[in-house]
Amino acid sequence: MAKNLTTRGEDYSKWYNELVVKADLAENSGVRGCMVIKPYGFAIWERMQAELDRMFKETGHQNAYFPLFIPKSYFSKEASHVDGFAKECAVVTHYRLKTDESGKGIVVDPEAKLEEELIVRPTSETIIWDTYRKWIQSYRDLPILVNQWANVVRWEMRTRLFLRTAEFLWQEGHTAHATKAEAIAEAEQMMNVYADFVENYMAVPVIKGLKTESERFAGALETYCIEALMQDGKALQAGTSHFLGQNFAKAFDVKFADKDGGLDYVWATSWGVSTRLMGALIMTHSDDNGLVLPPNLAPDQVVIVPIYRNEEQFEAVSEVATELMTKLRDQGIRVKFDNRDTHKPGWKFNEYELKGVPVRIAIGPKDVEKGTVEIARRDTLEKEFIPTGGVVQKVEGLMEDIQKNLYKKAIDFRSTHTTDVENYDQFKQVLEEKGGFVLAHWDGTAATEERIKNETKATIRCIPLDDDNEPGSCMVTGKPSARKVLFARAY
Amino acid sequence: MAKNLTTRGEDYSKWYNELVVKADLAENSGVRGCMVIKPYGFAIWERMQAELDRMFKETGHQNAYFPLFIPKSYFSKEASHVDGFAKECAVVTHYRLKTDESGKGIVVDPEAKLEEELIVRPTSETIIWDTYRKWIQSYRDLPILVNQWANVVRWEMRTRLFLRTAEFLWQEGHTAHATKAEAIAEAEQMMNVYADFVENYMAVPVIKGLKTESERFAGALETYCIEALMQDGKALQAGTSHFLGQNFAKAFDVKFADKDGGLDYVWATSWGVSTRLMGALIMTHSDDNGLVLPPNLAPDQVVIVPIYRNEEQFEAVSEVATELMTKLRDQGIRVKFDNRDTHKPGWKFNEYELKGVPVRIAIGPKDVEKGTVEIARRDTLEKEFIPTGGVVQKVEGLMEDIQKNLYKKAIDFRSTHTTDVENYDQFKQVLEEKGGFVLAHWDGTAATEERIKNETKATIRCIPLDDDNEPGSCMVTGKPSARKVLFARAY
Repeated sequence: MAKNLTTRGEDYSKWYNELVVKADLAENSGVRGCMVIKPYGFAIWERMQAELDRMFKETGHQNAYFPLFIPKSYFSKEASHVDGFAKECAVVTHYRLKTDESGKGIVVDPEAKLEEELIVRPTSETIIWDTYRKWIQSYRDLPILVNQWANVVRWEMRTRLFLRTAEFLWQEGHTAHATKAEAIAEAEQMMNVYADFVENYMAVPVIKGLKTESERFAGALETYCIEALMQDGKALQAGTSHFLGQNFAKAFDVKFADKDGGLDYVWATSWGVSTRLMGALIMTHSDDNGLVLPPNLAPDQVVIVPIYRNEEQFEAVSEVATELMTKLRDQGIRVKFDNRDTHKPGWKFNEYELKGVPVRIAIGPKDVEKGTVEIARRDTLEKEFIPTGGVVQKVEGLMEDIQKNLYKKAIDFRSTHTTDVENYDQFKQVLEEKGGFVLAHWDGTAATEERIKNETKATIRCIPLDDDNEPGSCMVTGKPSARKVLFARAY
Repeated sequence: MAKNLTTRGEDYSKWYNELVVKADLAENSGVRGCMVIKPYGFAIWERMQAELDRMFKETGHQNAYFPLFIPKSYFSKEASHVDGFAKECAVVTHYRLKTDESGKGIVVDPEAKLEEELIVRPTSETIIWDTYRKWIQSYRDLPILVNQWANVVRWEMRTRLFLRTAEFLWQEGHTAHATKAEAIAEAEQMMNVYADFVENYMAVPVIKGLKTESERFAGALETYCIEALMQDGKALQAGTSHFLGQNFAKAFDVKFADKDGGLDYVWATSWGVSTRLMGALIMTHSDDNGLVLPPNLAPDQVVIVPIYRNEEQFEAVSEVATELMTKLRDQGIRVKFDNRDTHKPGWKFNEYELKGVPVRIAIGPKDVEKGTVEIARRDTLEKEFIPTGGVVQKVEGLMEDIQKNLYKKAIDFRSTHTTDVENYDQFKQVLEEKGGFVLAHWDGTAATEERIKNETKATIRCIPLDDDNEPGSCMVTGKPSARKVLFARAY
């Protein structure tokens, strides 16, 4: 297939939009702001889900399922939550359609108006804490460590496939604890689980940190986050984990009897990652030839393409290909043998480059004679001939090499695109000329944060949790600063 | 724990409702008609999903995801579909809430009215075929074999946990084919996949058949189904697979170029099973002591309960228990060792009986001395002492025995509750006195079917696909009948 892909240099945003569609990941639907996740894109998401789900279960969590709809009044119960969430959302007001008597087709039945409107969940803290009230009486019922895989809806005006859609898929963990310390430990643990997944499966390096008060989740006392850097120098928030204090327990009256018979409100966390991670995966690794996938998440890790001019050659090549496929599969490697006779090898090469398959093996009649195959790796586009007997070992090595190389490339890019600045002029200059992460001193006030955002479009991505705690003075106001914080323009 | 469970004999319906809640499977939420699936119930559903998903993939299907919302106008495009589906549903009319200026809290913003209302999907044929139009140009693009795991909403007035809820979870397969024969073969294949799953994993025997025209899916030319029989003598439709002909292709203008360059409409199927299967699982096997789970789907297949009076005994017992647990896990058996000191053994015995864990192992200090353990099976409630060294083999055998025994009990129950009748009086008498499946001759008309339904509340569950094709005459009208069909009162 011909790729006709806009290059990153020409127009990064256009490159992304085209790539998502051309690589068969997702497309816009007939419903404004809602995407269709196509089978190839969904297969990648399924691998992400499977790994995350395993990690959640290994840390003691169980899955459950809570209603899609939330009564409007629930949102009003937690004051800061309603401000953050209940505004741009899908509102169900009626429960029936009817055939119009004057021939206008089907219309909403005015008789079927709900007494209280239902909101399609933008997040589920309220409905879940309304449920937890029934589950929790005593310290024996704690902790509750529950996760839900679900669709949520936030009515976004400007949408982009995976990055910002009205409906998206995510998981949301909601835990309940007897003590503050335990809840904070849980929120930190899940930030670390996310970082582990994003770095080791997605090969995307992240900075762990805390959100400033103005960037916190609506209703949280502390929001832990992981921040990644895309190839265009913009940051992307890859996951958040919230320490919610007793806010939701108080809003929904969830108390527990402790060991001494006293009554106290329950401590809470919530944490989530979404199909937005697909956007991070695509934008971190892909190039002007198309998608580049880390082997740990690629639906097909290896594709074998036969090269032949006649039936006899096809049979000879197929025999070698099938044997190789079996041997690779025996080692747990996901292999596809593309023996379709409806497409030429060149078309297939382009297709698998576009779709980011980590390793391509081509076998032609001459290879069969010589006992070799051609192996191409997607990340570096390097090709080499290998004796057929050495392919399994070679491919096993490549799975590790490519995974590591992608991570290294991404971390190198981040290093060269992270700049320490000492004053506001330098800050603005770096943002304009180079982009990326900028570390700078900030006085800790929302006013200064807001001013910087308005003047430069850069936000504080996080207050990093690393040990680099040199104090200084704010680049804008000159007031004292405990440490540099991480700024960037962001998705 | 004390069970206090209503017995099946006292009130079957009450027994079911209590069991679902007491065994921690699901509960009603604060949103009318919507349930919360609790972690234990969800763990069973996850096992069902995993097996079905594997079976779908083995038959060549891929997963994808389509929007939750469907524009109202889409439903009007397929005439019979709109009659069947677009009526009782959740309608989104607005996309924003706002804080009321006169202090009424948050209200729907009248300015944010959608131009066209959105329906929360009750099923996804319309949005999917609107998408397939973009995916299909040529025979090379066919077949499309796609499945989606999703939540759907049908506004039910009378709801029951798992059996009928406003929101439920399901999978819906939607396939597109170049020929009628291929589409029919697909619809039949998926009926067989469902039957295989329900019989071999859920241990629930089913009758395969065709729905009558009046019981068909809205928009289908043929509906294949599997029908199960519950312990109260009522039938439950466990899965359906529809041959949709070219109806949706015509409604959404989906044509393909065939090999000779001609243009034709695409052939379609759709097929689904839902969390309703949980209801079938519960009602088929469970007894007055609680849930009974087939080993193939039980989240915990074995629970080990320690019996002790002091720390020393606990340690001795724990040592044996832990070693056993490791050995059983090595054989791939799912084992839980309940070493909580907050509950007594008797309480635990009751809890695991209520939750249907197939095998319970109890170990006390005397057992440690003698080198034995007590093994109890949930299906028969039989107990026996086994030398510790023989436990792994014993449990492996029990996993198979219990699975088979549950299926056998269910099929025996069905045999004794399936009655061949020759006339309408006998038909009514069987329904009143015995219930169950009733095989009777029917003249093939919707009028007679409707009359029988009105007079007896029994519906034609299916026209069985078995070879029992003896002709006769309709029990109501005396007109010719090609074969007996399967009647029952149903969920």
